[in-house]
Amino acid sequence: MTVPTPMPLAAIILAAGQGTRMKSDLHKVLHPLAGRPMLLHLVASVAELSPAHTVAVVGARREQVEAAVAPHGVTIAHQAEQLGTGHAVAQARAALDGFDGDVLILYGDVPLVRAETMRAMIARLHADDAPASVVLGFRPADPGAYGRIIADGDGRIAKMVEFKDASTEERAVMLCNSGLMAVRTADLWALLDRVTNDNAAGEYYLPDIVMLAAADGRSSAVVETAADEVAGVNSRAELAAVEARWQAARRTQAMADGATLLAPETVWFSWDTAVGRDVLIEQNVVFGPGVSVADGATVHAFSHLEGAKVAGGASIGPYARLRPGAAIGAGARVGNFVEIKNAVFGAGAKANHLSYIGDASVGAGANIGAGTITCNYDGFGKYRTQVGAGAFVGSNSALVAPVAIGDGAIVAAGSVITRDVPADALGVVRGVQEVKSGWAAQFRDRMRARKAAK
Amino acid sequence: MTVPTPMPLAAIILAAGQGTRMKSDLHKVLHPLAGRPMLLHLVASVAELSPAHTVAVVGARREQVEAAVAPHGVTIAHQAEQLGTGHAVAQARAALDGFDGDVLILYGDVPLVRAETMRAMIARLHADDAPASVVLGFRPADPGAYGRIIADGDGRIAKMVEFKDASTEERAVMLCNSGLMAVRTADLWALLDRVTNDNAAGEYYLPDIVMLAAADGRSSAVVETAADEVAGVNSRAELAAVEARWQAARRTQAMADGATLLAPETVWFSWDTAVGRDVLIEQNVVFGPGVSVADGATVHAFSHLEGAKVAGGASIGPYARLRPGAAIGAGARVGNFVEIKNAVFGAGAKANHLSYIGDASVGAGANIGAGTITCNYDGFGKYRTQVGAGAFVGSNSALVAPVAIGDGAIVAAGSVITRDVPADALGVVRGVQEVKSGWAAQFRDRMRARKAAK
Amino acid sequence: MTVPTPMPLAAIILAAGQGTRMKSDLHKVLHPLAGRPMLLHLVASVAELSPAHTVAVVGARREQVEAAVAPHGVTIAHQAEQLGTGHAVAQARAALDGFDGDVLILYGDVPLVRAETMRAMIARLHADDAPASVVLGFRPADPGAYGRIIADGDGRIAKMVEFKDASTEERAVMLCNSGLMAVRTADLWALLDRVTNDNAAGEYYLPDIVMLAAADGRSSAVVETAADEVAGVNSRAELAAVEARWQAARRTQAMADGATLLAPETVWFSWDTAVGRDVLIEQNVVFGPGVSVADGATVHAFSHLEGAKVAGGASIGPYARLRPGAAIGAGARVGNFVEIKNAVFGAGAKANHLSYIGDASVGAGANIGAGTITCNYDGFGKYRTQVGAGAFVGSNSALVAPVAIGDGAIVAAGSVITRDVPADALGVVRGVQEVKSGWAAQFRDRMRARKAAK
Repeated sequence: MTVPTPMPLAAIILAAGQGTRMKSDLHKVLHPLAGRPMLLHLVASVAELSPAHTVAVVGARREQVEAAVAPHGVTIAHQAEQLGTGHAVAQARAALDGFDGDVLILYGDVPLVRAETMRAMIARLHADDAPASVVLGFRPADPGAYGRIIADGDGRIAKMVEFKDASTEERAVMLCNSGLMAVRTADLWALLDRVTNDNAAGEYYLPDIVMLAAADGRSSAVVETAADEVAGVNSRAELAAVEARWQAARRTQAMADGATLLAPETVWFSWDTAVGRDVLIEQNVVFGPGVSVADGATVHAFSHLEGAKVAGGASIGPYARLRPGAAIGAGARVGNFVEIKNAVFGAGAKANHLSYIGDASVGAGANIGAGTITCNYDGFGKYRTQVGAGAFVGSNSALVAPVAIGDGAIVAAGSVITRDVPADALGVVRGVQEVKSGWAAQFRDRMRARKAAK
Repeated sequence: MTVPTPMPLAAIILAAGQGTRMKSDLHKVLHPLAGRPMLLHLVASVAELSPAHTVAVVGARREQVEAAVAPHGVTIAHQAEQLGTGHAVAQARAALDGFDGDVLILYGDVPLVRAETMRAMIARLHADDAPASVVLGFRPADPGAYGRIIADGDGRIAKMVEFKDASTEERAVMLCNSGLMAVRTADLWALLDRVTNDNAAGEYYLPDIVMLAAADGRSSAVVETAADEVAGVNSRAELAAVEARWQAARRTQAMADGATLLAPETVWFSWDTAVGRDVLIEQNVVFGPGVSVADGATVHAFSHLEGAKVAGGASIGPYARLRPGAAIGAGARVGNFVEIKNAVFGAGAKANHLSYIGDASVGAGANIGAGTITCNYDGFGKYRTQVGAGAFVGSNSALVAPVAIGDGAIVAAGSVITRDVPADALGVVRGVQEVKSGWAAQFRDRMRARKAAK
Repeated sequence: MTVPTPMPLAAIILAAGQGTRMKSDLHKVLHPLAGRPMLLHLVASVAELSPAHTVAVVGARREQVEAAVAPHGVTIAHQAEQLGTGHAVAQARAALDGFDGDVLILYGDVPLVRAETMRAMIARLHADDAPASVVLGFRPADPGAYGRIIADGDGRIAKMVEFKDASTEERAVMLCNSGLMAVRTADLWALLDRVTNDNAAGEYYLPDIVMLAAADGRSSAVVETAADEVAGVNSRAELAAVEARWQAARRTQAMADGATLLAPETVWFSWDTAVGRDVLIEQNVVFGPGVSVADGATVHAFSHLEGAKVAGGASIGPYARLRPGAAIGAGARVGNFVEIKNAVFGAGAKANHLSYIGDASVGAGANIGAGTITCNYDGFGKYRTQVGAGAFVGSNSALVAPVAIGDGAIVAAGSVITRDVPADALGVVRGVQEVKSGWAAQFRDRMRARKAAK
């Protein structure tokens, strides 16, 4: 649900980390989470707040990020050197030249932050006590070496302290700094100008603006959220952990919405999967991006769906693969070891066994026999196959596209159909069956003799 | 093991809840657990005690429940209005007219209660201190808002108290009321008559009979069981949790009985799955109802079995699907992407790759080549295929039923067999191979030229 | 990494337990863990220390163990009667006749002990305080009835005590005895001679040597390791637990090495699986023994690989099965419901759907159409199929081996190819398509009339 914030908003997403621990040629923030780059999760959540600008600050592999965010209206700012988070935010200044409003500072590798939380940060920034900045805090099970936030009961920050500088009492505080912030442009640029790199790492730290504002007598505020929401991704193991958390929440939501998951831990959704009411999803089902499953449909075990629409009451699998462009009609059945790609599969139609239906339209109530193949590719182009309503394609047939089987037509088992079969006609390609009496017995004798001779 | 209780027994199963949180058109107690409606788990457990009567008290969707329990000798009583558990039990009174004995009160959405526990409740009812009623108690990890049971060391109940009415001391008691009870008919109806709806919800509460009996100077008793056993199902997430618990217990049992499960958490049993000794079950195997796997058989990864019998030493999968009526002989092999339905598959026979064997009998030691299809359906009827012992069916063959391949016969690869092949004969349908020299090169040139011209 | 220990080393692996709780005809230590017998995990870890001798002490089913370890240079010693661990070790004495050095005592059913830990035990044996023996200790979450080790801060053992003999203070000690030991031969045999069976079970206990040495004024030492490392296998449930632990560690390692696992808990590795950098492994993938996957390859969901090599950038699955001898070239694609066995599959070649490629070589860039089958078996021998570089095999074709399709040749869809097709030629076997107008409509009328007549 897209609701703009009261003041104009800009989001700065920091994504200039090296991601060394990923050991990957792909930029860390482009590793997929629930079927899309993790950065785009954040971009989508920010978009719910209708920002005037979204700027991603990128270092190495800038071109990878640029290509990924281009369709989403995100500007790229370049951080040539890694001089700290304060420096990184400053790189976005040129891209926001002339912009006056609120700024949200996010991290490309902290992808699960919800629009609701961002909204709460902005709302806090505009509360009556008018904080200089808002910090997103969390209380992890093990606060470890996170920086601590010392705040009062109203969330007004008394002190932000790095773990290594913290006293024993401060370390006992469980409220930690996620790094995410909300600040007005008027404050942000002025405060950033005063941040120094006078520390052990020689870096410009963004959180320093909190204490700089405090020195001016202006307090900042903390908004708290669940630790899971600000989980970061620095390695593939952490990526898997974030994915697992996302999946767990999505499964719970699907069940609350009225779908049965026989073994929820073995169903994987994508970010945009849509599942109806009284849908049954059996064990081990993978939903790639772009799938919708309407009310009362069943997805049997070991099925894999991507870019496919399944209408109400249809039955998919087990072991069915629906690829992009598959549109399965109401009450249709797609059975085991069947692949359907870029094909409209009519209401009540059936393809129960061992078939490949690609670049095709199959009419309502048609029956595709076991082992049917649409020969849609000749090494150069792709061609379409049409099967009419109520047609019956016998087992082990090959339909060499472009070709059309008319309504109510029958194709005899084992036929290779290269020319159209009119409606209500029979199409058949078949040789004459020969029987050679005793041949098998003689063959066995011969083979055994040969083996014995060795 | 069916052992009757000492006194005549009736079971009342309450199943009149709306199940709103399920968001389903199917009655809550009919949602399947381990492959059968959860209500039938309870009916089966009760049946081990040989009850004289089993009455299900149903509200909405009565006809769904009636159809499900009809084959199991369960009487339906109707509760038109939802006026509380005491009122629900009272609706069963007419169905038990004239019955004198013990009554067990169970809940259709608390499906995992074991016969052993029911027996312990009945035994306690007949203990020397002759309690007026027996309540099943449990100690959950988080007792939350459950009603508490205040009892002495012998399980004699001093007080039953709703959470909202409980004192701080009472809330500290961890023993909670599951709602399940055992009462003699003589006491039950008399006490129920005295239960009022004088409370905030305006409902007749069954547990009130405990304090009514106490007012008469007759104490009741508590029998304790594990919290997992009385887990209730109010949502699909809770159904999944109960299923997970059932599966975990069943997997542990299968391993204790001598089966190896390489990854137990990825094997799903049904309520009636039978698995032998030295059976190996690899990762991701689904057992639907009606499956038995004999000693020494292997079920490889990604297999799906339902209504199938697998004899000793047979090898199934990976990616094999056995459907109802599949009977796989000793030492037989069913390999990847093979589906077998309603077929006797002889000892030592093999179908290793990409085949559909339906409505068939395959003789001992026969070899079914890759890509073989039994064409068992013509759009109207189903027909049978017979393959004799020791026969060899070449790859990519279609056997158009009704048809018989004799013992020791051979079918040549790629044949569409429409007439019987006698024993020891060769059956072949095959065209003449033509070779057109240079055709492929010319085709490529033509296609490339066409592309270039665009 | 194989590094010999400073002194000559012998390992004694005790494997004479009955394994009754396994309920198996297979010797307990031969049950597989991560795709190889658990005993061989231990043998491999020991081998990293270059021992002069490895002796397995076996009771029942000696021949099974003997066959399994024969290729690994392990000597078998026989323990005819089960008279305790001290007695079992003594049975190895003859096999070590004349050997003078260090002895490691291990347990065949404690398979996860690492070479590093063994090395630490040997190193401790040769530390300046020269202990009489070294015991491997651990601190389990629940120490239960394990024997306790009372030791000082330097690991010098003051007392070893069985749980049943331990005082309350001793039971409060969390350091437990794993049973694994390191002892010099000079000490081992002399001490063992003095162990008696004067205890309730009438058994000779190996740990008694610690207190016997102490009685001589020579202390022993404890080396500690993680409880997971010394987990024992006495039942199939414990085997599954050890397997789960091994898999969890291996998955973490794969991710640290730069592979993405979308759902790590559904990927199963074997002991020797090799996975490169920027490899993507989707949900539900099983790696049997002997698999390597090179950099940048993708293994899609529901795939099963065994004895196969996958080159860089190749794409496998979903639902692909690679069997022993499959070598998939760089950038090649093996798609859904495709099985490849004993076949070289060239760079950039494709087999995307429903095919069986066995005993074959497929040239670079060749395209294998949907439903293609290599007919490699005639019931007696296996024969090879060759498909040339850039060849195009049309859908639903059968290639009857031995047969060769030349470079750049085309096979028409549905052909059964029995003779070679030269390079750049077209090979086709196809009947003439007949169309019988109205036949299908008449057939339906006839069938409906027949049904109505019944």
